Amino acid sequence: MIFITGTDTGVGKTFVSKIIGKHLKYKENINTGYLKPIESGGIEDTATLKEALNLDENLNILNPVNLKNPLSPNIAAEIENKPIDLVEIKKSFDLLKNKYDFLIIEGAGGVAVPIKYNSFLMSDLIVYLGAPAIIVSRPDLGTINHTLLTIEHLRNKGILVKGVIINCINELDTVLHYEKTFETINRCGNVEIIGIVKNENEYNINFDKIIG
Amino acid sequence: MIFITGTDTGVGKTFVSKIIGKHLKYKENINTGYLKPIESGGIEDTATLKEALNLDENLNILNPVNLKNPLSPNIAAEIENKPIDLVEIKKSFDLLKNKYDFLIIEGAGGVAVPIKYNSFLMSDLIVYLGAPAIIVSRPDLGTINHTLLTIEHLRNKGILVKGVIINCINELDTVLHYEKTFETINRCGNVEIIGIVKNENEYNINFDKIIG
Repeated sequence: MIFITGTDTGVGKTFVSKIIGKHLKYKENINTGYLKPIESGGIEDTATLKEALNLDENLNILNPVNLKNPLSPNIAAEIENKPIDLVEIKKSFDLLKNKYDFLIIEGAGGVAVPIKYNSFLMSDLIVYLGAPAIIVSRPDLGTINHTLLTIEHLRNKGILVKGVIINCINELDTVLHYEKTFETINRCGNVEIIGIVKNENEYNINFDKIIG
Repeated sequence: MIFITGTDTGVGKTFVSKIIGKHLKYKENINTGYLKPIESGGIEDTATLKEALNLDENLNILNPVNLKNPLSPNIAAEIENKPIDLVEIKKSFDLLKNKYDFLIIEGAGGVAVPIKYNSFLMSDLIVYLGAPAIIVSRPDLGTINHTLLTIEHLRNKGILVKGVIINCINELDTVLHYEKTFETINRCGNVEIIGIVKNENEYNINFDKIIG
């Protein structure tokens, strides 16, 4: 299994999860499942992966905690008076973990997003599920800082960081000296860049690293 | 003295430094100076503060390390073959620290921005100068994650975080439940929100916290 997190909200976690899922399922014939423990602001991410991987589970199994407001989970849960129940998440996790040979788990926002006000963060959920993590990062100015901070946070909690995938969203050509940015992340973060995604059909990802 | 850092590049460090500097100098008659140890991509930040505070030092005293390329300092320095010299920074720092009663030091990018490839980061510069820090954050979705990561990184290096200033850049009204976002930063980050800046003339900042 792998936990797909990111350096920010909107950095492309779902987009990258979809590319990985479709590759593993349709190109490597691995029985691949998906879990979105928490989604706020709709059900789009879960529906996207359900369709892409042709999963037969109901949406509420794939996404046990769904919140209407596009906010940090702790805030959305408070506003909607819907306390987040880790047991519900664990139930879906156990069910999907047993059914599939490889499980993609997608976070919500970044690693320090609070799930509860008492500082139970997204990273604590990764520890709770016992998954290694992959970080989806942007290619442009500011990504080094956010990626190094995210790596540091995950490692402080003993989470294995399998690597970074740079999601370029078609803008790699406009990024000055991006190779040096990736080299800096690699050297200063002591982490491997295991993928660069230009768009849905143009990507270079080390899938062995993900499933190994 | 205070080191003004931020959760990202372009989050408003210079804008907030200017508000703080002008208030301390012109409203509290504190002999206030400014140091921008490293600026890449031009000299705009330094020139802005030199003018705002009517400082008579040359730009290269206020900004000892200036790099042309708008990139992470380690990359800009490499491309311009201009290794970053901490001694130059210390010289300016010592000169300005002695001359002024209060020194505002502004970082470049976020706290984990590499100054050198060997992982000498912006936060190491803060330690090197022995300054407490203030974090400038955005008000919108994603700011909780970046602010908590930045606080964690600074505290891991023993740096005193005096507080967070939210720079709203006129968009507070469009941010859903922003009070709960600020409450979350306060509670989960165990940090005080010491200022909210709506625009250059509308702000609420606890200046005693900054100079205290």
